[in-house]
Amino acid sequence: MQIEIKDLSFECIIGILDFERITPQKVSINCAITYTYNQEFLNYALVAEHIENEMKRQQFELIEEALLSLNHSLKAKFPLVTTLFLKISKPDILANCEVSLSETFEY
Amino acid sequence: MQIEIKDLSFECIIGILDFERITPQKVSINCAITYTYNQEFLNYALVAEHIENEMKRQQFELIEEALLSLNHSLKAKFPLVTTLFLKISKPDILANCEVSLSETFEY
Amino acid sequence: MQIEIKDLSFECIIGILDFERITPQKVSINCAITYTYNQEFLNYALVAEHIENEMKRQQFELIEEALLSLNHSLKAKFPLVTTLFLKISKPDILANCEVSLSETFEY
Amino acid sequence: MQIEIKDLSFECIIGILDFERITPQKVSINCAITYTYNQEFLNYALVAEHIENEMKRQQFELIEEALLSLNHSLKAKFPLVTTLFLKISKPDILANCEVSLSETFEY
Repeated sequence: MQIEIKDLSFECIIGILDFERITPQKVSINCAITYTYNQEFLNYALVAEHIENEMKRQQFELIEEALLSLNHSLKAKFPLVTTLFLKISKPDILANCEVSLSETFEY
Repeated sequence: MQIEIKDLSFECIIGILDFERITPQKVSINCAITYTYNQEFLNYALVAEHIENEMKRQQFELIEEALLSLNHSLKAKFPLVTTLFLKISKPDILANCEVSLSETFEY
Repeated sequence: MQIEIKDLSFECIIGILDFERITPQKVSINCAITYTYNQEFLNYALVAEHIENEMKRQQFELIEEALLSLNHSLKAKFPLVTTLFLKISKPDILANCEVSLSETFEY
Repeated sequence: MQIEIKDLSFECIIGILDFERITPQKVSINCAITYTYNQEFLNYALVAEHIENEMKRQQFELIEEALLSLNHSLKAKFPLVTTLFLKISKPDILANCEVSLSETFEY
């Protein structure tokens, strides 16, 4: 089965530009988790909470680093996951588009 | 051919939290059905009605159980179906995202 | 290359129910056409016009028939096409969802 | 990893019709870039800027030509890219739909 967390939105410090280190900006996370349901279920609320907490706490510079870090901590915390798709979007960083970085991780 | 039922929205009792057993919440269903059209056609209105009725009647706890139950009853009721994709979303259960569970079933 | 015609919207007579034979309803067409660009290009405006004209003229009963008919006439009229994805949606026929029928045709 | 630039919107001269050579029209670009992140990262802002500048400067006639030209210049300017998906949409050229042309390029 696949859990999808769509447009998880909050503000955090992220980016390498001077103003990005000072002013929190909106990020939006999309996440798709494949897992085998068998008595035990995977709690979507804990996944969403973990992503938001890590992003706020770690104040990543590159979204590349954020993706790799979330991959490792999600894998460690939710061992039922078999495949993880993770996309981090910065909707407001460019004036006339939305930019994202994504990756699929097979566990 | 593929029938798609997009954002079928209604309220029902679903979930394992205390307040979810008492207060109906909005759910949104996305469903894609592959079938071989050959004289007989598959009535999309009956599929939508079946999903809504079952979700309201059964008051599932886990969305995992809802998915598996709908898979079985749709298969039994609509034998023309060859592949079923089913996604159940709870748009309002978390404050800053939409969560869904989905699965593809091959018949 | 792939031409996409997204949400081509107009009203026409379509459907098998009594009121559907009398009152035009909104339909929305999504179409993706793969073709090999090589000096000659495929005119997207003519494709859109053809689809709208045929749907209005033929007043199909089943959307299954509409899909198959458009497949044949598009293939005949636009020989550059190699793959056609066609989706016909009836956004207003059911109260709480949008229904569609789609198929991919390889030429 | 995959960088996505979504709905990059601006006005430029594009098209083969008489009025399209005189009046700028809105275009919207969607772009997905696969690249291997390894110390060096790919700057999404420079990619977006390059696309917008080229489209405005070159005033393409066919969107087919625009796609092929952007493919070549992006490949030359951003050697880290391994796969490029590029879609150019003209949201306002037809009254009741949005038309696009897209292609995936493997480097």
